[in-house]
Amino acid sequence: MGGDSSPEDRVKGALLAATELDVEVALVGPEDVIAAELAKHPKDARISVVNSADAVSMEEDEIVRTVRRSRDASTYVAMEMVKCGEVAGMVSAGNTGAVMATAFLSLGRIEGIERPAVALVLDYNGKRVLLIDTGANVDCRPNHLLQFGQMGSVYMNKVFGLPRPRVGLLSNGEEASKGNELVVDAHERLKESDLNFVGNIEGTHVHQGSIDVLVADGFTGNIALKAGEGIADYIIQQVTAAIKSKPWLLVAGVILKPAIKRQLASMQYHETGGAVLLGVDGIVVIAHGRSNAVAIKNALRVAKVAAENKLMETMRASFSRTPRPNSFPATN
Amino acid sequence: MGGDSSPEDRVKGALLAATELDVEVALVGPEDVIAAELAKHPKDARISVVNSADAVSMEEDEIVRTVRRSRDASTYVAMEMVKCGEVAGMVSAGNTGAVMATAFLSLGRIEGIERPAVALVLDYNGKRVLLIDTGANVDCRPNHLLQFGQMGSVYMNKVFGLPRPRVGLLSNGEEASKGNELVVDAHERLKESDLNFVGNIEGTHVHQGSIDVLVADGFTGNIALKAGEGIADYIIQQVTAAIKSKPWLLVAGVILKPAIKRQLASMQYHETGGAVLLGVDGIVVIAHGRSNAVAIKNALRVAKVAAENKLMETMRASFSRTPRPNSFPATN
Repeated sequence: MGGDSSPEDRVKGALLAATELDVEVALVGPEDVIAAELAKHPKDARISVVNSADAVSMEEDEIVRTVRRSRDASTYVAMEMVKCGEVAGMVSAGNTGAVMATAFLSLGRIEGIERPAVALVLDYNGKRVLLIDTGANVDCRPNHLLQFGQMGSVYMNKVFGLPRPRVGLLSNGEEASKGNELVVDAHERLKESDLNFVGNIEGTHVHQGSIDVLVADGFTGNIALKAGEGIADYIIQQVTAAIKSKPWLLVAGVILKPAIKRQLASMQYHETGGAVLLGVDGIVVIAHGRSNAVAIKNALRVAKVAAENKLMETMRASFSRTPRPNSFPATN
Repeated sequence: MGGDSSPEDRVKGALLAATELDVEVALVGPEDVIAAELAKHPKDARISVVNSADAVSMEEDEIVRTVRRSRDASTYVAMEMVKCGEVAGMVSAGNTGAVMATAFLSLGRIEGIERPAVALVLDYNGKRVLLIDTGANVDCRPNHLLQFGQMGSVYMNKVFGLPRPRVGLLSNGEEASKGNELVVDAHERLKESDLNFVGNIEGTHVHQGSIDVLVADGFTGNIALKAGEGIADYIIQQVTAAIKSKPWLLVAGVILKPAIKRQLASMQYHETGGAVLLGVDGIVVIAHGRSNAVAIKNALRVAKVAAENKLMETMRASFSRTPRPNSFPATN
């Protein structure tokens, strides 16, 4: 529950996943609402229902407080199922802040990780780049960025099978001297680490296939992501206007549309399966708030692949060498 | 001189400007190179040549030092002409850092302005947004962002005639609480100022016409700009691939191309005339390093319009009410 996507789409997505991915899916939320949706479809033994209160709607400012008093909310109940091993991972299309706060409270951090982060796979026609962080941590220290690089590398290694993921640092220029204080310092640490760090990368080059992991603080990562979305939106709007300006252009446009759509499909969140919360001790996929059934299915696929490839075990092992920090803002 | 654009394009651009904008243009650089270029065109009495050394090519790290010992370089000579009032403003297609360093040394800051910034007009099919700063100041304090808003407002008022430019602050969410520490603090200051501050704005909304000035520190502004360029590049590349995939799609594509180009033309730097260095005491337009003749002409038009509308006088008056700061990193 939670987010803008309908129970209808979520139930459909779960059924799609059960069939196409051969997974069992537990739907967590008010039993009557879910049962009513399920009744519209043929019975599938791989789908179960776990009763909980609805997701709690929250103001950004109140998230942590609200989460603490809402241990019967669907997100919390699902998270506890991850924690005690009843399920291999979870998907939520709820508010990212609420999912994060719940994850901190329920699952906790993996030892050695200072700041869990939200990572998103950007897919440029098969050239995949994991952007980490997309907005969870707006104020970072250099060591956080180093750890984002490490978490991102583990993820791309386990989920996409890349032997040695190439890590780039988002900056305003390629030279090591470019960037704000945070980025210049983080560059040094990444360079000294045993990650496959290829240096700074500018937004103009991210789609060109030279990196697998793109490290940024959550503020910068979010700005880059939304600036790209804004321009994409604008260009599509302008191309549509051009097509509609004359009848013969409209004909040409109609002919081209499916090919263009196919070519750009990989960019859409429906296909990429949503963001992943890395650094907490369990598999948590955050689907887009407006996910349709296909998006939900793909988010479930991400959780499945991560679990099958032992993402958590590798993440824990990778950070067990790191000295325990004491700098994470307490959430309990 | 300087930058990647040829003397040929610059001379052509100057001739275009002389004819179309009815301005006099002094070309500053090695006399023999410029004379050879001019000889290819019919004589125009509005064009003059001012001899100087070539632009000095510099490594980013050496800019300030190099500028100090290169007072015969074309940029410095042109800047001194602005300073002593021989010309109303100048255009350079050279390295931005070098132009800035030269401007600090020659023109100096306007009293009251802590950090000069590079501002760029983004043009979304006639909806114009001035992004300030695009990269000059990678580490800012909240008061710098406030001043960027003020400089941007004066610019959009004088150059585009907007009575009360709407100022937005680039952030990762619309709520006042969203942003990193810098942005949250800058939001407060902008809100308390007498600017027409409309609040935080996300990159997804910049092109929608709700703001005239977009404030960001130079690191964030640069990231947003290049992320947008990257996505635009990717989409155009994918659309081209789609068109080329089948002969009949290619036909449709060829029919559509001019209309799409026309619709997207306003986004290109050739049309917008380049960036403006605001905060130094003189009109300095920084054209794109790869400017063609039209881009150079449009950059000259920006300088002309700014001069005619008394941009500098208004800027000085606007900041004369601000107490003098002592925090600007010394360049002399």
